[in-house]
Amino acid sequence: MNIEFDLIARYFSRPAPCGFLGVGDDCALFPVAAGHHLATSTDLLVEGRHFFSDVDPAALGHKALAVNLSDLAAMGAQPVACLLSLSLPAVDHDWLTAFSQSFYALADQAGCPLIGGDTTRSTAGIVISVTVMGQVRPDQALRRAAAQVGDDVWITGDLGAANIALRLLQNELPYNPDLLEATRRALEWPLPPWQFGQALAGVAHAALDISDGLAQDIGHILKASGCGAELEYLALPVAPALQGLDSQLVQAAVLAGGDVYQLCFTAAAGERARILALAAASSLQVTRVGRVVAEPGLRVRAADGTVIPLDKAGFDHFS
Amino acid sequence: MNIEFDLIARYFSRPAPCGFLGVGDDCALFPVAAGHHLATSTDLLVEGRHFFSDVDPAALGHKALAVNLSDLAAMGAQPVACLLSLSLPAVDHDWLTAFSQSFYALADQAGCPLIGGDTTRSTAGIVISVTVMGQVRPDQALRRAAAQVGDDVWITGDLGAANIALRLLQNELPYNPDLLEATRRALEWPLPPWQFGQALAGVAHAALDISDGLAQDIGHILKASGCGAELEYLALPVAPALQGLDSQLVQAAVLAGGDVYQLCFTAAAGERARILALAAASSLQVTRVGRVVAEPGLRVRAADGTVIPLDKAGFDHFS
Repeated sequence: MNIEFDLIARYFSRPAPCGFLGVGDDCALFPVAAGHHLATSTDLLVEGRHFFSDVDPAALGHKALAVNLSDLAAMGAQPVACLLSLSLPAVDHDWLTAFSQSFYALADQAGCPLIGGDTTRSTAGIVISVTVMGQVRPDQALRRAAAQVGDDVWITGDLGAANIALRLLQNELPYNPDLLEATRRALEWPLPPWQFGQALAGVAHAALDISDGLAQDIGHILKASGCGAELEYLALPVAPALQGLDSQLVQAAVLAGGDVYQLCFTAAAGERARILALAAASSLQVTRVGRVVAEPGLRVRAADGTVIPLDKAGFDHFS
Repeated sequence: MNIEFDLIARYFSRPAPCGFLGVGDDCALFPVAAGHHLATSTDLLVEGRHFFSDVDPAALGHKALAVNLSDLAAMGAQPVACLLSLSLPAVDHDWLTAFSQSFYALADQAGCPLIGGDTTRSTAGIVISVTVMGQVRPDQALRRAAAQVGDDVWITGDLGAANIALRLLQNELPYNPDLLEATRRALEWPLPPWQFGQALAGVAHAALDISDGLAQDIGHILKASGCGAELEYLALPVAPALQGLDSQLVQAAVLAGGDVYQLCFTAAAGERARILALAAASSLQVTRVGRVVAEPGLRVRAADGTVIPLDKAGFDHFS
């Protein structure tokens, strides 16, 4: 008996949707809508690096897919299907049940069926690789290089909570169970705005998710687009749970804190009413935080008009 | 400076082909030909499990993509693009140079550009995740469930060499540098028949690659198709390097040895001349080794007509 096949059969072999060929053949097969391109992204999550060894497996199953759906959202692409590879030191059925159930729950919610993957025994910790595939009309895709001078800069959701939760869990901040309770959902159960992302396709110009922190990520748009941006710090949507915390701590979390699976996007000023209406239709908070300017670089202005120094880099995958 | 971006920029950011959007955005984007479905497969390769820690990084870069191209070949799909994720314990520039150059060399040869991926620091050994994407007309895809009673069973290339090389490297066989020299290319530099696989689309019925060993893998076709097969042991294409070895050793390598990134496929008897012509056009060896029958199960007959017992399972990913 090949346990690989047993694991896949037991946890990861729900029937594929009609018209799809899923788990069990050499490849999965699915159609891409006429006039659309295939959009794809992949993330590798490593135990001890991207998640704690004792993380709730249900949260991990959710987040492994969520971080990839966030990339589709940032492209304006509609989720179509996903692949999941797992490398596990041992077969833990409770762990696999919790992980697979929440992975499937989010896949169902996003209309992104799991159609293939790989399982193997690891020699060390858990490694998770997820690939998502979506579809988008190529002329409507939200590319990093598409920001235009004069665009508004927008942010969905709010900022800072995931970073505070991470720092609490890493004991970088003093023990504070109430604050952890109020922030850890943002870290462990992110819900990227994939529907709103699709709605932005053809409306917004550039977009990306804030997985590495606002200052660093918006820098990718500005560099790719050959322009700069001015943001108002007081306009940034700070997570309500951060009220009353030290202002320097909040500022670092808001400007440099990663793991924010929300969008930063730019759009022409003429689209303001439409963007607000689209966000309302998705029950999503959107905030206009600044504008794209010709002068390169990012400047975040405090209430008094001075520029806040951005010396704290975002999350470094190889630090 | 974010070293993740530096690694991607330094080793993995060749320009994407015209009409593609590659490394550097939230998703890669590419077109799928009209009337075609997207075919995708993913493999996770773990140090100490799928490759030795001291493996030649050039061979590893080649094989990481080759095993995935093999899945496209087995589906009859044309390679379109691939994604590569790497989790590395440290940044070794010589290793990355050798790995990336041979990965790209095979990607170029197969017309399968690298358009995205992820890099991260690992807490333990090297982990490689490759996802390939191809395209195939859905009615022509070579599915496991499509074998028909009366079909011929065919094999491309030859069998057994990779298994002998693996057993030599694992010291399961006595030290024999000449034999290792003659067999290790099959293990470390497999070249799956992706062009012939495409040519078989619409011609053959069922197909798969022999990554887990002939007996086990053909069993997947037979089970999915609800039929059986009779193979002639003497008809099986044994790798020339195995001549003169102990016959039991050869038999185990040929019937149960995995890591054979060649195809086993079934096709109507009326297609024999066409298949031979297609193989000749690809300069590929193909061998007719038996036929599909109604009685379930696989029977491999020796020269005297007796059935060879198949008690040795193929490679078990979780053993």
